[in-house]
Amino acid sequence: MAKNTTSNKTTPKKITQKITKRNAFYAQSGGVTAVINATACGIIETAQQNKDKIGKVYAGRNGIIGALTEDLIDTSKETKKTIAALKHTPGGAFGSCRYKLKSIEDNRAEYERLIEVFKAHNIGYFFYNGGGDSQDTANKVAQMSQEVGYPLICIGVPKTVDNDLPITDNCPGFGSVAKYVAISTREAGLDVASMSETSTKVFILEVMGRHAGWIAAAGGLAKDQENDPPHIIIFPEIAFDQAKFLRKVKSTVKKCGYCVVVVSEGAHYADGQFLADAGSKDAFGHKQLGGVAPMLANMVKQELGYKYHWAVADYLQRAARHIASGVDVEQAYAVGKAAVEFALAGKNAVMPTIVRKPSKKYAWTIGEAKLADVANIERELPRNYITRDGFGITDLAREYLEPLIQGEDYPPYKNGLPQYARLKNVAVTKKLSNKFKLR
Amino acid sequence: MAKNTTSNKTTPKKITQKITKRNAFYAQSGGVTAVINATACGIIETAQQNKDKIGKVYAGRNGIIGALTEDLIDTSKETKKTIAALKHTPGGAFGSCRYKLKSIEDNRAEYERLIEVFKAHNIGYFFYNGGGDSQDTANKVAQMSQEVGYPLICIGVPKTVDNDLPITDNCPGFGSVAKYVAISTREAGLDVASMSETSTKVFILEVMGRHAGWIAAAGGLAKDQENDPPHIIIFPEIAFDQAKFLRKVKSTVKKCGYCVVVVSEGAHYADGQFLADAGSKDAFGHKQLGGVAPMLANMVKQELGYKYHWAVADYLQRAARHIASGVDVEQAYAVGKAAVEFALAGKNAVMPTIVRKPSKKYAWTIGEAKLADVANIERELPRNYITRDGFGITDLAREYLEPLIQGEDYPPYKNGLPQYARLKNVAVTKKLSNKFKLR
Repeated sequence: MAKNTTSNKTTPKKITQKITKRNAFYAQSGGVTAVINATACGIIETAQQNKDKIGKVYAGRNGIIGALTEDLIDTSKETKKTIAALKHTPGGAFGSCRYKLKSIEDNRAEYERLIEVFKAHNIGYFFYNGGGDSQDTANKVAQMSQEVGYPLICIGVPKTVDNDLPITDNCPGFGSVAKYVAISTREAGLDVASMSETSTKVFILEVMGRHAGWIAAAGGLAKDQENDPPHIIIFPEIAFDQAKFLRKVKSTVKKCGYCVVVVSEGAHYADGQFLADAGSKDAFGHKQLGGVAPMLANMVKQELGYKYHWAVADYLQRAARHIASGVDVEQAYAVGKAAVEFALAGKNAVMPTIVRKPSKKYAWTIGEAKLADVANIERELPRNYITRDGFGITDLAREYLEPLIQGEDYPPYKNGLPQYARLKNVAVTKKLSNKFKLR
Repeated sequence: MAKNTTSNKTTPKKITQKITKRNAFYAQSGGVTAVINATACGIIETAQQNKDKIGKVYAGRNGIIGALTEDLIDTSKETKKTIAALKHTPGGAFGSCRYKLKSIEDNRAEYERLIEVFKAHNIGYFFYNGGGDSQDTANKVAQMSQEVGYPLICIGVPKTVDNDLPITDNCPGFGSVAKYVAISTREAGLDVASMSETSTKVFILEVMGRHAGWIAAAGGLAKDQENDPPHIIIFPEIAFDQAKFLRKVKSTVKKCGYCVVVVSEGAHYADGQFLADAGSKDAFGHKQLGGVAPMLANMVKQELGYKYHWAVADYLQRAARHIASGVDVEQAYAVGKAAVEFALAGKNAVMPTIVRKPSKKYAWTIGEAKLADVANIERELPRNYITRDGFGITDLAREYLEPLIQGEDYPPYKNGLPQYARLKNVAVTKKLSNKFKLR
């Protein structure tokens, strides 16, 4: 229909098609990952394969904010090659945001605005790619559209490095962080081991996971033999006990000559206070916004006198597309593809999930969860994934985690550096005259 | 000669061989790297290829300390496969140490002890793999052996992530850190860019390099186009100016929406005080052993109010064998191989260097430097490698750095993790009755 070569007449059939063929809206939400763009790629490519049913895929510039402000990106302006390159590009190619919509009761205007923008751009499909909060938002948008009688199919698409969504066996984004943390722990462990005789005895690696210890647990995969690092993992699920920790550090240094600690940023005392917040003020009396790694390192130095090093991986871990898990990339693409297929099958207010098959060899398939069942639930690391002493992972945890870091999906390189997609991100012409004021 | 099957008689010829064929001693010194074991591999394999001239290669357990305490590792007890795997194994496989021998005048006993141990184990070749300090030590050992009339060939082998050795175009170990830092900057930059609308506006990555800014400069390779990250690099070669820095952060956030900073751990004020030391004490009045990244992040927050994230790569950067530079691995192996070839050619008190050929396409060869010319000299980043404003790298720097990060030499993987060599490190039976007390 693009090239109008055969006829200038618009047949009734074509009109029908124009009306029934509706556009899609896609937005990235919350902290980005090494593979969230692989999900975007899955959505856009699958929509393109169904051109008879889905028109254009518009992406929200900076997530849902793009919808509220009518700042839409026309993904059809990118080349096929660029869209394909999203599969190996970290970060959020269209921009993400930390902006949680309030409840419909508390801010009805936001939901009405979304529907207004969707209507103006003939958007019939809403794909929201994020964690628990985002699934909640997608569910509310689904409710609202039914309430006002605007036909909109709302599909949540899972993403979170924290791996804390319920129902789905795991979350796209997690496997790659897990792989990065396991590899980094193994590599830094070898470094410390070689330095320990005369220099560094304790190495502390801080990883993400404010409420759940999945990422810290992944550090445990670095260990192959009993005395291998990491020797201590500190989980948010286990209250931090300073005396016990220091005893364990000391006995480990005695036994192995050195001690490698992986600590979750969410490590906290029994009273709930985060270790990262516990301490120190700077010379001006301002609270020191340290990390938990330097805080623990100071503790070790002061109480045990060991020389230490510490690292805080921060964004490096969740952006590390250069060493993404092959399984993770595949699953991230698959949930995007499934989201479009769900929409085309007329499903609504659901989210594709990863289902682990009960086979001995790891195998997975795509399942389906109701958004209402996913929204706002955080899945912690089960207690039986953590060793009795609270400092390691069990075989059960290993069985769960290991398949998720399989495969190396290397990006292409040029001049020694990975070549990541560079999008034009062309704006869709605005159709509404009124502006929306964000909170 | 190992299997005594043909004859039990020891012919005169064999005796001569036994006397002339002498063993080699190899030690790793100072901070280890992702490729120092590739150098070890080059030395051991090349020695094995010259079995008629070199006996066994003994490694010092924990570097030169192993020689002083007569704690030698018999590398011939490892399989060929394990030795080959050293080429892709980070850390120091035999242990390294931070132990600088004093001058001969100040501690003659140490040098005499080395000679004593070497004599006891028929060691005729001394390969010392380290930075400037180690080259100095190797040179002194060469002097001492001549002085006491013990025939010993001393070859220094370059290694340092800091890239601060003179004469050699670059140092094995640096290219891989450079690649890691450039990739991490690019990846984290994409992450921050996607979050900046509502969340993180400033990201600060702290990298190694206490006295020279080579590693920080490598972060600059992440930039392909004008507004790409990193937007600011802080070098130890340029005194830190807080007001100028904050102005640049502010203008960058205005222009690009976010700001990525790469800072060398050696960043300091005009009076020489390190930024990392400048600040804060904890609640107990102890000096806060922060890093420079959190210190700068606090500064940005307090003065400009931007939300920030920071990362400290620490050992992760120099242990990151999973993304080692192909050129670096090749050169690390080559200097090991050349060291043995130099020794067999009768050269003494020299170090193999990397020589950049004057061709348009990057090409290199092995050169030779006298240890006396290398010892204790630190090479800083030239001023014309840094942009006029002090916050970036020039095209000249890029031309120098780019070839060093070429190629991806991936290690083998099993179960989602790199498989690194695991050595037996079998001790050589001691021959001396006296023990040596380390300082």
